[in-house]
Amino acid sequence: MQTLQDNISELIAHGLDRIHYPETAPGLYAPIAYTLESGGKRLRPRLLLSAFAAFCGSRPISEALPQALGLEIFHNFTLLHDDVMDNADIRRGRPTVHKRWNSNSAILSGDAMLTLATEYIADCPSEKLPTVLALFNKTAMEIYQGQQLDMEFEERDNVSVEEYMDMIRLKTSVLLGCACRMGAMLAGAAEEACEAMYSYGTDLGLAFQLRDDWLDTFGDPLEFGKEIGGDIVNGKKTWLLITALEESDGEIADILREDLEPEERIRQVVKVYRKLDIDSRCSALVKEYSRRAIDAIRGVDMDGKLRDFFIELAHESAERSH
Amino acid sequence: MQTLQDNISELIAHGLDRIHYPETAPGLYAPIAYTLESGGKRLRPRLLLSAFAAFCGSRPISEALPQALGLEIFHNFTLLHDDVMDNADIRRGRPTVHKRWNSNSAILSGDAMLTLATEYIADCPSEKLPTVLALFNKTAMEIYQGQQLDMEFEERDNVSVEEYMDMIRLKTSVLLGCACRMGAMLAGAAEEACEAMYSYGTDLGLAFQLRDDWLDTFGDPLEFGKEIGGDIVNGKKTWLLITALEESDGEIADILREDLEPEERIRQVVKVYRKLDIDSRCSALVKEYSRRAIDAIRGVDMDGKLRDFFIELAHESAERSH
Repeated sequence: MQTLQDNISELIAHGLDRIHYPETAPGLYAPIAYTLESGGKRLRPRLLLSAFAAFCGSRPISEALPQALGLEIFHNFTLLHDDVMDNADIRRGRPTVHKRWNSNSAILSGDAMLTLATEYIADCPSEKLPTVLALFNKTAMEIYQGQQLDMEFEERDNVSVEEYMDMIRLKTSVLLGCACRMGAMLAGAAEEACEAMYSYGTDLGLAFQLRDDWLDTFGDPLEFGKEIGGDIVNGKKTWLLITALEESDGEIADILREDLEPEERIRQVVKVYRKLDIDSRCSALVKEYSRRAIDAIRGVDMDGKLRDFFIELAHESAERSH
Repeated sequence: MQTLQDNISELIAHGLDRIHYPETAPGLYAPIAYTLESGGKRLRPRLLLSAFAAFCGSRPISEALPQALGLEIFHNFTLLHDDVMDNADIRRGRPTVHKRWNSNSAILSGDAMLTLATEYIADCPSEKLPTVLALFNKTAMEIYQGQQLDMEFEERDNVSVEEYMDMIRLKTSVLLGCACRMGAMLAGAAEEACEAMYSYGTDLGLAFQLRDDWLDTFGDPLEFGKEIGGDIVNGKKTWLLITALEESDGEIADILREDLEPEERIRQVVKVYRKLDIDSRCSALVKEYSRRAIDAIRGVDMDGKLRDFFIELAHESAERSH
């Protein structure tokens, strides 16, 4: 039997397939279609539609589809521009837009995606438009702030765990919070419930990102789908590395300064991680945020099946292997 | 005595000075402030506020200031990203953002400017928001299309005059049309008047761009403020070059293919232009669009002083020397 989550996934897939691109300057839209057809978890539109379903009563969830698509388009726009900034070659197993086309195409088509996302977000009942749009714009601005901090952190060697948590909250979590809140707002949920959904989404986002950090070092290579240890090789400032830098009394900094082969560098860094118990402390923190997410929606009056879905999703996110 | 146009200029300058930037990630906002303080004609916000003034009766023109600032921020965002794409070093006599900072800053701060622009545009009475925002988004999308075509034309040697006119309409003119229409819409003008203002703005924009093309080759170096002949040296496909390519029976194409010193190339191309009477034909076309702009608002019921301003501006734009 088809579940509500199956319906939601189908709605999103069909919606993305049916995006209408203008006929003028098709070269502007080919990279957008390429980006959107490349898959991904579709987590943001799924959260938005699930949050809508939790409070909408008997109204059809397709009412909130434009905003769900708008957030997915926006998310893919940020990935597209981030890939240019990081000079990344591969995204979801395929060449990035700036490799397949060029940087100029990636910049300009990304701009067009941001405007396209805004058009989808704005396609809602006019009495909801001011608050829905304000939430979207505020969230977008926070995500740029997060990306800016992330770039600045790469140039610094004294980033604190607190600063790191602030950065990932901005860069990753607020968009999940925005998805949950926007779905609830569109369904007409009370402000208190909307706020609770926002907390749920941001805590889920923190759990998600910290689990990403953990998987990159401690994941199962067969299930993770990417090479293990990429963050260590690139000296990427993750929760693991920043915590170890703070606590290892120069040991990690020394290893990073040495000119080691990738495998040897991973081996030495992981050895320090194990000594400091970074592995299980990171897992515990992921569980803590997952628990906070679940706590946030306790006592909120919503559809029982959807509540179960949100609780299950928070548990899964803390234990996922890819 | 201070005229209405003085008031408008002052409002815009103060408004841009008083933009409030968030305190998180100041590195994101420094390039935005730098871009907005660098001057320019402020033509789009002036058009928007003048159009508002033409139809608003006794209401204060500051009512439409957020949207005027939004369009100026948007315009500067497009220049910022265009400069990255063109790898331009100088804008308004100062290093471009990607030279002063780097490309990543220019991309990300540009993204933030687009969202900031949308926030300003959205700061209007909620009953006007859906149509005002739709006009803004549609115009933004057309401008990306224009930029895409402009980039594609640089790689082609068979661009027609008609294609060129379509491209500059998208890349430049529709934003002037949008400014005029949005001012009228915000003032509550009738749809017919809004449409007339849009036509005025787009025809003004075409006159403006064609005059730019003309000035780059035939302008007075002392008044123009830039080196004369830059477009010829760079092989830029302007109305002048495209017309000459179509009519000179291979003569222009041959000159462009030769490895000439800049001054010699300019001399030879201008000689062909003169032979084909490109100089005065371009001027006549500029006057034609200026006349059409004025025709568009004939018969529209608006404040007499503002009508005089719009007519005068169209005449000036056709004869400006910088």
